[in-house]
Amino acid sequence: MLADKTKISSPSTPKSDCESKVKFKDSNKMSSNSYVYAKHKRFFRCSTEGKQVDELVTLEHQLWCFQFLKFNDNHCNSAMAGEGNNYDQRVDTEEEREHFLKIIQAFKSYKTFANNLVLRRLSYIETLPETQQTALSRYKTSLQEILKCVALNHQIIEMITEDADSMFENPLNHSNNFRIPRPKVTLSDVDKVQVTLKQIYRDWTDDGVIERIQCYQPILDELEELFPSSLSEQKNSKWSRSDLNVLVPGAGLGRLAFEIATLGFSCEGNEFSLYMLFASNFILNKCPDVKLHKIYPWVMSCDNNLSSDSLLASVVFPDVNPTNLNEINSDGRRFSMVAGDFLEVYQKENEWDCVATCFFIDCANNVCTFIEKIFTILKPGGFWINLGPLQYHFSNSTEEESIEPTFEDVKLIIESAGFKLLRETTKLPTLYCQNRRSMLKQHYESVFFTCEKPNSPSL
Amino acid sequence: MLADKTKISSPSTPKSDCESKVKFKDSNKMSSNSYVYAKHKRFFRCSTEGKQVDELVTLEHQLWCFQFLKFNDNHCNSAMAGEGNNYDQRVDTEEEREHFLKIIQAFKSYKTFANNLVLRRLSYIETLPETQQTALSRYKTSLQEILKCVALNHQIIEMITEDADSMFENPLNHSNNFRIPRPKVTLSDVDKVQVTLKQIYRDWTDDGVIERIQCYQPILDELEELFPSSLSEQKNSKWSRSDLNVLVPGAGLGRLAFEIATLGFSCEGNEFSLYMLFASNFILNKCPDVKLHKIYPWVMSCDNNLSSDSLLASVVFPDVNPTNLNEINSDGRRFSMVAGDFLEVYQKENEWDCVATCFFIDCANNVCTFIEKIFTILKPGGFWINLGPLQYHFSNSTEEESIEPTFEDVKLIIESAGFKLLRETTKLPTLYCQNRRSMLKQHYESVFFTCEKPNSPSL
Repeated sequence: MLADKTKISSPSTPKSDCESKVKFKDSNKMSSNSYVYAKHKRFFRCSTEGKQVDELVTLEHQLWCFQFLKFNDNHCNSAMAGEGNNYDQRVDTEEEREHFLKIIQAFKSYKTFANNLVLRRLSYIETLPETQQTALSRYKTSLQEILKCVALNHQIIEMITEDADSMFENPLNHSNNFRIPRPKVTLSDVDKVQVTLKQIYRDWTDDGVIERIQCYQPILDELEELFPSSLSEQKNSKWSRSDLNVLVPGAGLGRLAFEIATLGFSCEGNEFSLYMLFASNFILNKCPDVKLHKIYPWVMSCDNNLSSDSLLASVVFPDVNPTNLNEINSDGRRFSMVAGDFLEVYQKENEWDCVATCFFIDCANNVCTFIEKIFTILKPGGFWINLGPLQYHFSNSTEEESIEPTFEDVKLIIESAGFKLLRETTKLPTLYCQNRRSMLKQHYESVFFTCEKPNSPSL
Repeated sequence: MLADKTKISSPSTPKSDCESKVKFKDSNKMSSNSYVYAKHKRFFRCSTEGKQVDELVTLEHQLWCFQFLKFNDNHCNSAMAGEGNNYDQRVDTEEEREHFLKIIQAFKSYKTFANNLVLRRLSYIETLPETQQTALSRYKTSLQEILKCVALNHQIIEMITEDADSMFENPLNHSNNFRIPRPKVTLSDVDKVQVTLKQIYRDWTDDGVIERIQCYQPILDELEELFPSSLSEQKNSKWSRSDLNVLVPGAGLGRLAFEIATLGFSCEGNEFSLYMLFASNFILNKCPDVKLHKIYPWVMSCDNNLSSDSLLASVVFPDVNPTNLNEINSDGRRFSMVAGDFLEVYQKENEWDCVATCFFIDCANNVCTFIEKIFTILKPGGFWINLGPLQYHFSNSTEEESIEPTFEDVKLIIESAGFKLLRETTKLPTLYCQNRRSMLKQHYESVFFTCEKPNSPSL
């Protein structure tokens, strides 16, 4: 398991209940990006009679997946069977809120946890012989510098969580039934906050450009190959890019989806992790200029440093103005982000012209289910472009089921699902949140392929 | 933390009690290598009056660190203060045995644990839709192949533990006071058995030669530079290599120490981990020819495989006959292995002409202590050669103290200890148990340096 990769839990089999996406435009004034959220998985349930449960609509400063959103019946495919769903609904809601509060708490605990790690080392040094303390004097100075960088990271983290926090407080305060004790946060939760900062490095800084060229550019080039801009601009063309719907499941901090939209496609990113969603909301909606903020992504990476330059290095973000997209986004359809579980949010068949996945398919307990879902939601003649390794997220889990087919096996699954494999490349060198100054170097030799959903079923 | 690296616990500060090394020649008939073991740390204690506690001597098929060895008073520096040491001694002995039995149990549990992981996946597949099961048919075949490879690994593991097990059974059976319930083994313990197989790949196979050239050859070249063979062979030379004592702390499976001895030096390897000690004992003493055995080092590495060739790959060992060394080892002094904690085993000052450490100094809770110990045990004019990263083993520990100085900080510690830094190289590419077929590529840009302990204290 790659330490830097946030584990995202997702169900192993698709559910055909009425849990589907609910889209709301972002009402935030700072940015007019159509940054929208679906409800979180299992947040809504239908009653036993199959009627939809309407919830209190609270449209405030910004809509959020955990707010009580009006259920969108356009996407409700089927009713759930079984009894006691009103109870289930309340339990699920509490679970969701507990999860939400836990992530908020993880962000808020970052400074304390990080400081404690540093202070523990400083205390330990105090117990060492005088000669060792003297020898460690420069190291001690570095530890003090780390404390300063943590404090600066904390300022960014506060901005990231500012809205998310207040979003949730209103419904919570309105209903005492849902009051939940402050969740317990572990070092592993807080570590994911640091990982989120590394993801900002990858997606939204000048320094991360090498990773984006390796991981995103091949996908963008393939889109250009499949849907040439020259054709899109012709007056007698059968299509224009803005009519083509591209979905990016596992969108993370949204840069790939943003780049696809920048090429002129209508693009929707989908993400499950609240760590990613809080941060992408901040970047896409609250950063209306370049190089506004500074973070220290590697400040807690104490191993394998030649000098303290390595762990005290800072990056500024964003490298581009995310609101630039507005200029080519007049119809409000071109770029959006949707929160929720990929398998549950997308229930409509034959909807997408293209699905682009990058470092995503190995997040599945069962990769077959992801591949089948992608096939289902693609229009006939639509394309699936994939790039990434096979670092299966649940391979070491003792709690969740997992299978880990090799790439040769994955290709059989792809064909079995009905896809036609058009092109494949292996051994594509791709970095993932690599500190270039670290003595530990890690990269994946990724696979990169394009499949087509045939226009008519093959015999 | 590098997943493949066996964590070796070691105390953070040196102790000056009477715990010191006890050497016995290996009485094993299959090999005449002088493979010897010191007692395990804390195994022996002095009485409160400072008298040594003699223990039952049981010299059987092979001497082992956990046997009741006669205490060697040559190495007893000081008596322990405090009362109740007879009780402490029994408790310590039980702790040692519990640890020993746990490692034995981990080796013995390998097959069951590994099989269960595979069988769980096969059971999960049974629950999937028929179409998915069909798509996964080749993957299922690979899982069956994995079971076969695990069974073959198990055969080697049985050979590795055969002696170690019987060694311990005798004293255990002789004394019912020390009977200990079967220790509980976790997946993480068993994972270290698989890591041990990867170490065999690194140290004793043709395939591992690339890692040995990267990691060991620079050290061997430096020894040649410091003690040229041409000078050693001259009749009027002040020294011959066989008179020079080289110590390799953290010797692992012993290949570096073996290579140093092959160059003509008297070389002693020191190792703390029982996983390593059991395996090195098997290779050095029970493998009197080349390419005797086959293992599957990557069979449990289910992530990032292009095809099943990657995880089903086998290697044969040993690549050289470890008993070849006998021919140049007539005086019986040239090559030995000593078990125990580096900080506790080596108490004698000014003993070694050279200390060579490879992927070792980052095993310390406090690297200052390792560096000071190396300085202390070196003769004036002696050399310390080091190669490796700074992947500090306790950096993520919540239980043990840790500091993680950068290389710049480490150099200050080296100078503060009294060393003169002669040469340093950084960014030396070094692999560590890398499956070359894996899509995940990892290496360290290691540091490599040579220090001298000055002949007279600097002013």
